[in-house]
Amino acid sequence: MNKKQNISDSVIHRLPRYYRFLAELSAQGVNKISSNELAERMGTTASQVRQDFNCFGCFGQQGYGYTIAMLLEELAKIMGIENSRKAILIGAGNLGKAIAGHITFSKLGFELIGIFDNSKTKIGKDIFGFRVASIKKLKAFCQQNNVEMAILCIPKEQAANVVETLYSAGVRGYWNFSHHDLKSLHDDIIVENVHLNDSLMKLSFRFVDL
Amino acid sequence: MNKKQNISDSVIHRLPRYYRFLAELSAQGVNKISSNELAERMGTTASQVRQDFNCFGCFGQQGYGYTIAMLLEELAKIMGIENSRKAILIGAGNLGKAIAGHITFSKLGFELIGIFDNSKTKIGKDIFGFRVASIKKLKAFCQQNNVEMAILCIPKEQAANVVETLYSAGVRGYWNFSHHDLKSLHDDIIVENVHLNDSLMKLSFRFVDL
Repeated sequence: MNKKQNISDSVIHRLPRYYRFLAELSAQGVNKISSNELAERMGTTASQVRQDFNCFGCFGQQGYGYTIAMLLEELAKIMGIENSRKAILIGAGNLGKAIAGHITFSKLGFELIGIFDNSKTKIGKDIFGFRVASIKKLKAFCQQNNVEMAILCIPKEQAANVVETLYSAGVRGYWNFSHHDLKSLHDDIIVENVHLNDSLMKLSFRFVDL
Repeated sequence: MNKKQNISDSVIHRLPRYYRFLAELSAQGVNKISSNELAERMGTTASQVRQDFNCFGCFGQQGYGYTIAMLLEELAKIMGIENSRKAILIGAGNLGKAIAGHITFSKLGFELIGIFDNSKTKIGKDIFGFRVASIKKLKAFCQQNNVEMAILCIPKEQAANVVETLYSAGVRGYWNFSHHDLKSLHDDIIVENVHLNDSLMKLSFRFVDL
């Protein structure tokens, strides 16, 4: 049985944050850290930190702490960011362009290999080295290239149709910027949603705290 | 005492989702919904839904459910999205441009009134009707226009300096796309983080479930 199964969502949520803080410390030349120090930076408790790392078989040394390089390596393995899963992006609008240009996919477990759109004004245009392809070529491309993940930067109304095409071509991972609830379409897909509107509404709500 | 205080993070997290689902139903011409139906759409339980709405004094009618228009109005008030708080965006790169072009601020409690950058190649350029201004003008602009919120689409290394300028000009709300931990800078600010890299790492992690 894989040790990554049965890990709670809240632990999964903390993993990238651990990775980010530790990578920062490493870049500053720090080699070791105690669970207390790490907890303080993360705004959590030392016992939480130890419990999280124990989940994955990472143990610190009493009175010595954790070796940062080792933790980083272990976290990278756990999160699978050393992989290079083939990814494509659908929707070459402003958001799609920003994602294509802003994200260093190769450091996060993926390789971006194509960009697709359904608009004649976008197809054929060059975006960060990719020639935008017609959505009509989506299915064949995914099958030929074993695409595992799709980034959806498309309007909500188009999401269900596009996902059907992708699903039938074997794509099972979705980084979803559309507002469609993809999990309602298929049980056996994995989805990570980025709901920018929700995030802004939460910020609006929090103004009451000021 | 304001009824919005002491609301847990998990409730705050669900509010925009309720709003989204209800707005969708309303657009489809649906007028009423039971807590059971809403719970099913949200992937939660009816008692959770009732408890969440009770927090804000929204009560359904036994055997009748909730009136969607009323819930939407109440949620909009609670989240403050009927406000029009002045907001600016810092960083006119790909991500900043996408945010400026993609988000309907007026429906989410804010009004975007300016875009700033420190790069000579970007200052003076036109982005969605805004002329990009020099970051040197940031402080005076915020003070003159009572800016309440700043969207940070800048590299991590620049975040602390920019926040000091904004903070000294009275800006207390931050929609943070940089990877800097802003809460460590000031206690009395509100921050909503969008960590795209973290989101992608979580997706990478979840591939183990397939």
